[in-house]
Amino acid sequence: MNELNTKGQLLKTAARAWAVADTETKNRVLSAIADTLMAQADTILKENEQDLIAARENGLSVAMQDRLLLTKDRIQGIADGVRKVIDLPDPVGEITDVVTRPNGLRIETHTVPLGVIGIIYEARPNVTVDSAVLCLKAGNAVFLRGGKEATRSNAALVACMKEAIRQAGMPEDAIQLLSDQSRETAKEFMRLNTYLDVLIPRGGAGLIRAVVEQSTVPVIETGSGNCHVYVDDSADLPMALSILINAKCSRPSVCNAAETLLVHQSVAEAFLTMAEPALKEQGVEVRGCAKTCALMPSAKPATDEDFYTEYNDLILSVKVVEDVDEAIVHINTHSTRHSEAIVTKTQAHADAFVAGIDSAAVYVNASTRFTDGFEFGFGAEIGISTQKLHARGPMGLRALTSYRYQIYGDGQIR
Amino acid sequence: MNELNTKGQLLKTAARAWAVADTETKNRVLSAIADTLMAQADTILKENEQDLIAARENGLSVAMQDRLLLTKDRIQGIADGVRKVIDLPDPVGEITDVVTRPNGLRIETHTVPLGVIGIIYEARPNVTVDSAVLCLKAGNAVFLRGGKEATRSNAALVACMKEAIRQAGMPEDAIQLLSDQSRETAKEFMRLNTYLDVLIPRGGAGLIRAVVEQSTVPVIETGSGNCHVYVDDSADLPMALSILINAKCSRPSVCNAAETLLVHQSVAEAFLTMAEPALKEQGVEVRGCAKTCALMPSAKPATDEDFYTEYNDLILSVKVVEDVDEAIVHINTHSTRHSEAIVTKTQAHADAFVAGIDSAAVYVNASTRFTDGFEFGFGAEIGISTQKLHARGPMGLRALTSYRYQIYGDGQIR
Repeated sequence: MNELNTKGQLLKTAARAWAVADTETKNRVLSAIADTLMAQADTILKENEQDLIAARENGLSVAMQDRLLLTKDRIQGIADGVRKVIDLPDPVGEITDVVTRPNGLRIETHTVPLGVIGIIYEARPNVTVDSAVLCLKAGNAVFLRGGKEATRSNAALVACMKEAIRQAGMPEDAIQLLSDQSRETAKEFMRLNTYLDVLIPRGGAGLIRAVVEQSTVPVIETGSGNCHVYVDDSADLPMALSILINAKCSRPSVCNAAETLLVHQSVAEAFLTMAEPALKEQGVEVRGCAKTCALMPSAKPATDEDFYTEYNDLILSVKVVEDVDEAIVHINTHSTRHSEAIVTKTQAHADAFVAGIDSAAVYVNASTRFTDGFEFGFGAEIGISTQKLHARGPMGLRALTSYRYQIYGDGQIR
Repeated sequence: MNELNTKGQLLKTAARAWAVADTETKNRVLSAIADTLMAQADTILKENEQDLIAARENGLSVAMQDRLLLTKDRIQGIADGVRKVIDLPDPVGEITDVVTRPNGLRIETHTVPLGVIGIIYEARPNVTVDSAVLCLKAGNAVFLRGGKEATRSNAALVACMKEAIRQAGMPEDAIQLLSDQSRETAKEFMRLNTYLDVLIPRGGAGLIRAVVEQSTVPVIETGSGNCHVYVDDSADLPMALSILINAKCSRPSVCNAAETLLVHQSVAEAFLTMAEPALKEQGVEVRGCAKTCALMPSAKPATDEDFYTEYNDLILSVKVVEDVDEAIVHINTHSTRHSEAIVTKTQAHADAFVAGIDSAAVYVNASTRFTDGFEFGFGAEIGISTQKLHARGPMGLRALTSYRYQIYGDGQIR
């Protein structure tokens, strides 16, 4: 039996114990995890240092090295994050519906854990703990497949978590880390339907595409965000500028950052003239349609490809549109269905935009940057779904649950 | 541009119009569809006759020919089914949550259609209309890929539905039938992520496995049912027998039929002695564990494979178990997570069974045959989900929707 099947079997068994664990027990485990992480910070940092040495030897980019890096402060941050999950309501065991049928059958709908969740991610060791803890709180077992650059860090973090679970008297098998880092095994991991109930990729567009392409386990697609800000003819232009600069520049590398500005033709000149120096000050490169280039001397011409691109960088594509309808069609054609915003004072245009846009989060007069589990008040986030099945937009603990029908009778037959 | 992309594009455009259609409009379309089906019954039957001639020439089994067959009565039944969907509540446009955040952002959660739904199915022409109508009622566009044996029947049914939609003043592009029946195109259909939001296979285990294996579009896995009845030590044995016979024999070919009987060791002799003549009378072949075979002379020995098998036939595998815990472990190991029943008078055993079983529907003292959208009171059914993502168990109209966050601000930035 290979590692996948051995660990899959352990997870499936452990998942049954976790599914029926009460809230207090799960919180006791989380508390022990936070304590153990702090108590063993030195060990974790030593292993992380080894990963970093290897990363430098292998010529990993400085940005990637920074993602990989753990410090005492970062471990403290991870442990604080675990403690915050303790305070969140338990999403499991709720009865969401009770119906008694004419034949006397009582049909109850109960929230239950998903079961065994696979997480496939890159070289960010914090994801190891964040994901595992959210899965456990929702009563799930979790199979982690992290980036190979973080192998030693992840092993140390998982060892900590397992020790804490053991201390708290629960089955430590509920967390497994895939050690075999081969591509072949990653592929098999994505086809482990016997053991995995769902697979959540967390990482860049390439990883997510690969998982969607190759997985036979049900996937929740996350994180790819080609987000738009549309400035309507009746927009408060200073508000529009503030939203645009926030959406584009406050953290350009994240998925809820804006990539494209659409501007109504009748305010294009006024708005683009106002926006040009502000964007320049932020170091934003503008790639515009012909009309944009005519109005904004610093803009380079945009290709069709630009409008499909999630730059994750200080680059903005800009297009002048005829009206809100053209904006809607452009967005539905080019976006990744993540987050889009309209800035307008016209209720009818806001309504048309909200109804017409096929994205997870549609904003009226606010920045796309709010698409986030914490900003939505979920207290946590396992990712941002860009598919429509199961969960859409920011996913909190509830997204890590399913439901079960419990039907009570007294001998009914059909 | 090939057929998939051309029709995909038409569907995507039509889906936007359907997403914002009001209930009255959608119901008007459904009513027109029912009328047109009846008005054009002769044309439909003529095309169906051609499919049947080809089916006989190609040596299709009698059972398959029967599934393919349409009659005036069956068309009436299909039209009646359409009219029933008119009466169901519109699942779209409901506001399920409103939260105002400390920064003043108002976050509303609205139910919205899934978008474009792909249905891949076998040679049952009724599925063409049933599926399309449910998708339309929930505001979706639908891309149908039916079995090649029903090509002419399906084309006639789709032509009828399109004509009705046109009459009702809505975009008929919301229904498309894939005419290219090649395997290669079926494969591409399952990878049409640009246009399809979800893919629902409706058919036998082979079709469903192929779709799960090959699809990159999010799939809702349906219909495979290796269901269990467990007779506990405190069971009312006549009730247990009535439930077993109903679950096994009332319609053995369907997914909610029972395939395996588990019986507590302390009542095994009494129950199996009672069950043997009843099963024999129904023509059920029993394949049992060693203990079963000792107690039931007519039983053949079961292989391990038997306990994993969905017979869809008058065959029953039987195993004597030590207690409810062994029953739970056996079921979680062998079942397809569809429906399982316990017959017991012991509340603690019922509770342990319900909490411990990892299936969509868990019954206490009732037949597994109730796992059905109509029996659950949904008024319709697009299939029975055996996965945990998105929808579980019988799926009604609500399962054909997603949700969208609509966020209203007055210039909030982060």
